[in-house]
Amino acid sequence: MPLTGKNYIAGEPSAEGAEVFYSVDPRSKTTDALPFHNATQNEVDRAVVAAAAAFQEIRGYPSGKIADLLDEVAAQVEALGDDLLHTADRETGLGLPRLTGERARATGQIRAFAGLLREGAYLRAIINTEQPGQPAIKQMQFPVGPVAIFAASNFPFAFAVPGGDTASALAAGCPVVVKAHPGHPATSELFAQAISAAAAAAGFPAGTFSMLQGNGIDVGQWLVAHDAIEAVGFTGSLRGGRAIYDAASRRPRPIPVYAEMGSVNPVVITQAALAARADEIADGLVGSVTLGTGQFCTNPGLILLEDSAATRDFITAVAEKMEAAPAGVLLNEAIAAGLDSAVGQTAAHAQIEVLTGAEAVSDGDFFCYRNTVMQTTAAAIREDERLQIEHFGPVTLFVVCEDGDDLRGAVDSLEGNLTSTVHAEEAELESIGGLLHQLREKAGRVIWNGFPTGVAVVHAMQHGGPYPATTAPGTTSVGMNAIYRFMRPIAFQNVPDALLPPALQDANPLGILRLVDDVYTAEAI
Amino acid sequence: MPLTGKNYIAGEPSAEGAEVFYSVDPRSKTTDALPFHNATQNEVDRAVVAAAAAFQEIRGYPSGKIADLLDEVAAQVEALGDDLLHTADRETGLGLPRLTGERARATGQIRAFAGLLREGAYLRAIINTEQPGQPAIKQMQFPVGPVAIFAASNFPFAFAVPGGDTASALAAGCPVVVKAHPGHPATSELFAQAISAAAAAAGFPAGTFSMLQGNGIDVGQWLVAHDAIEAVGFTGSLRGGRAIYDAASRRPRPIPVYAEMGSVNPVVITQAALAARADEIADGLVGSVTLGTGQFCTNPGLILLEDSAATRDFITAVAEKMEAAPAGVLLNEAIAAGLDSAVGQTAAHAQIEVLTGAEAVSDGDFFCYRNTVMQTTAAAIREDERLQIEHFGPVTLFVVCEDGDDLRGAVDSLEGNLTSTVHAEEAELESIGGLLHQLREKAGRVIWNGFPTGVAVVHAMQHGGPYPATTAPGTTSVGMNAIYRFMRPIAFQNVPDALLPPALQDANPLGILRLVDDVYTAEAI
Repeated sequence: MPLTGKNYIAGEPSAEGAEVFYSVDPRSKTTDALPFHNATQNEVDRAVVAAAAAFQEIRGYPSGKIADLLDEVAAQVEALGDDLLHTADRETGLGLPRLTGERARATGQIRAFAGLLREGAYLRAIINTEQPGQPAIKQMQFPVGPVAIFAASNFPFAFAVPGGDTASALAAGCPVVVKAHPGHPATSELFAQAISAAAAAAGFPAGTFSMLQGNGIDVGQWLVAHDAIEAVGFTGSLRGGRAIYDAASRRPRPIPVYAEMGSVNPVVITQAALAARADEIADGLVGSVTLGTGQFCTNPGLILLEDSAATRDFITAVAEKMEAAPAGVLLNEAIAAGLDSAVGQTAAHAQIEVLTGAEAVSDGDFFCYRNTVMQTTAAAIREDERLQIEHFGPVTLFVVCEDGDDLRGAVDSLEGNLTSTVHAEEAELESIGGLLHQLREKAGRVIWNGFPTGVAVVHAMQHGGPYPATTAPGTTSVGMNAIYRFMRPIAFQNVPDALLPPALQDANPLGILRLVDDVYTAEAI
Repeated sequence: MPLTGKNYIAGEPSAEGAEVFYSVDPRSKTTDALPFHNATQNEVDRAVVAAAAAFQEIRGYPSGKIADLLDEVAAQVEALGDDLLHTADRETGLGLPRLTGERARATGQIRAFAGLLREGAYLRAIINTEQPGQPAIKQMQFPVGPVAIFAASNFPFAFAVPGGDTASALAAGCPVVVKAHPGHPATSELFAQAISAAAAAAGFPAGTFSMLQGNGIDVGQWLVAHDAIEAVGFTGSLRGGRAIYDAASRRPRPIPVYAEMGSVNPVVITQAALAARADEIADGLVGSVTLGTGQFCTNPGLILLEDSAATRDFITAVAEKMEAAPAGVLLNEAIAAGLDSAVGQTAAHAQIEVLTGAEAVSDGDFFCYRNTVMQTTAAAIREDERLQIEHFGPVTLFVVCEDGDDLRGAVDSLEGNLTSTVHAEEAELESIGGLLHQLREKAGRVIWNGFPTGVAVVHAMQHGGPYPATTAPGTTSVGMNAIYRFMRPIAFQNVPDALLPPALQDANPLGILRLVDDVYTAEAI
């Protein structure tokens, strides 16, 4: 299907508004000819009203039918073929190998949700049978209703229109209205076509999915303020996520916002680890910091070590490797400008020493920033929280600590992060526990002798963490448990089986694991 | 231990401030001599700092040790003996039989959490073992940190200082700072003494528990604004809950607020149900509306029926029974004034007909309001959301609908509620499903042929619902799952077993149910 530059509202292209924006190739700074239309407030309303109408139907659909929709979405995404890869590459500069891998990740997680639905235990059926003086109570998880999703810039597939937020919301049984990211509008439209086609093929009402374009803040604000929206998923910057959170909190009827807003992902490296494998760690660190031109929310941006000759040698080695590593292309002008501003602010700090980089490559015909290494002290980190801002790009900041106490004091002053990492040796297992669990309180995922980039899409993954990493540290945006952001428990008291979903019927026709009178069992009652 | 009128901060009585208030007997409107001291901002800070310090220790405690604390709390509460019952009766007028039952409920739910902890599956351990190209990821639930709890007025035991919020937060492993309700300060102090003694006996740091008194809004605002508080539990009014929610959302670092703010708990009665058992339903309804002088958040406050001769007879019968039922004592002056204001506003509405009551019993020497029945139309409910306000007392409002469509339109316009109820007959099972599931979308618990008062403390209970019933419809404040409000998942990547909690070690030394490579099992790996 040809690109139209329009919004997709309940399956139909729509362009009511006059405001347009364009797709830009970050490798050449050239602008494509096709105008993309910002959605109007009326279009936002139409999308949400269609979603609410769709919910009246799909809230009764069995898990298996939703699983079929997800499989169809994955198939339709794959049917976009190489056109999708080339379009996304032109809009993001991420390169075909990365995008090919990301496509597999996106379709893989969509299909994983289909598998979760078919297995059935995700419904968390809990039953207390009738007892003397106590009625029968049966509960399970239900979809919350229409969900607004804000797509990210840096993962045009896996955290964007068909990404984990959309997949988990659809899996929950919720209609979805996606606000596409303006950094890749053509890619977003291809996905809108694919998901709309999948909804039709799977027999879902067209309002199950809509996609809105917009390069300002209006579309998002209208969407979050709409009374029929029940929850919001967001992946992006702290500033953007907080604005969405504030708007949702100020509503007459507040709704939850699940915003993943990135972090600095502290890494602690012990002296023993340096002694054993400084080169290996340096290579791994440089690879992790520069992966995807550093545009990962799990980019290791804060490296803490005790001061020593080995530490100084290590920092020098990392700075040299960073300087030698090829500079990558940044996603778009906004990312480049934001990075320049953030690093500029940090580099100007009196307690910051720039070891390499800290400047844009401004004479290129592509968006680019030099790989950057900076250094500071534990005291500076403790005293000024502005040194904990995320630099969204190939940038890392060493924190050289006077000793172990100084290091633990710096860790104590850390804000919330998506991840925290320790590099240490087996011989330190007995002594490192306190630090590891101190780091645990600061993050959603703790990594041992690895690097935080690379988020496995598995059931046990936790991609979240205390604010400012997210607005909802009890939830995850990656892995199967992401579905619970968009579900809520409902209990039924003395309701006859004939009126209950199969998961709650005494006979357990789905054969799923349930908690019956405080015992986990797949047996019938 | 004698009452002091002081706050309890980390086990020690404290009265830094000069502002005081007094306990009032609602049956005689007489004021007790003992002054209770409003906590100062410094005392709030001391309590939270002590809680944060305690968390550094207890975050590492095994579940079994926390279970021992809970058992000790239950035992210490029981050791307060009849003095507790008489004190609470004097402050609330709820009566010894009700308070005896509520004490059993409070200690029962504390011990139920101890049982949950010893069973162990509540930790929700999820493990994905190492696979080619994918590291081992293991996650489980951890406590979030210091929690602020706001006690309710209407359940001085089960939703107050030692209530479900405190029990679930302690069970999660979180230190608790309780803002006591000013309606029963002496009762609150007895509990503070009991819980402080339990913490000491169980070997917990004193900062694990503090109790603050206050009869204004300052103490609560200081508490919620304190940077070291990680989550808030609240039971009370919509106005109070929303103020706490707004304060928490405006923090530099926002935190979740789990506020249960009551509701009108719609009840639909079909014509077939009326034909079969109008008298029985009328008796049940009057009993439910007047139970505890109507001061329940699950009080049935909105009764929807289709118009008919039987409906008119039913409403007349209910009004007569309500008029004949003895008027009960209200908890305190604030409740009485609030009820008078809320009913007065509703009764003044042009579409409202007062059938009985709607006035205070003002010449008594106790706080009292006449049992009240009002009537309106479905059209009025649809058009004016102010008719959905909660009247916190022995008050119910009939909504007479023209026909089934009119009734379903009224249901569609309902706001979020804790419960919704249908009275219908077996013969209607096939036709009633649509309505039942429409009511489901409006509530956290759906009741068939029963009444919403009486909330069984069982695993399957859901005591929550869409706003304005709560600020967090995905959570519950009654039942075992209440614990998850105060926990968050943390994942460990490649972390050696020696550094992991027992629940995540390969050998599964706790023998708990875990999700291992997508299969539920209690086996070792």
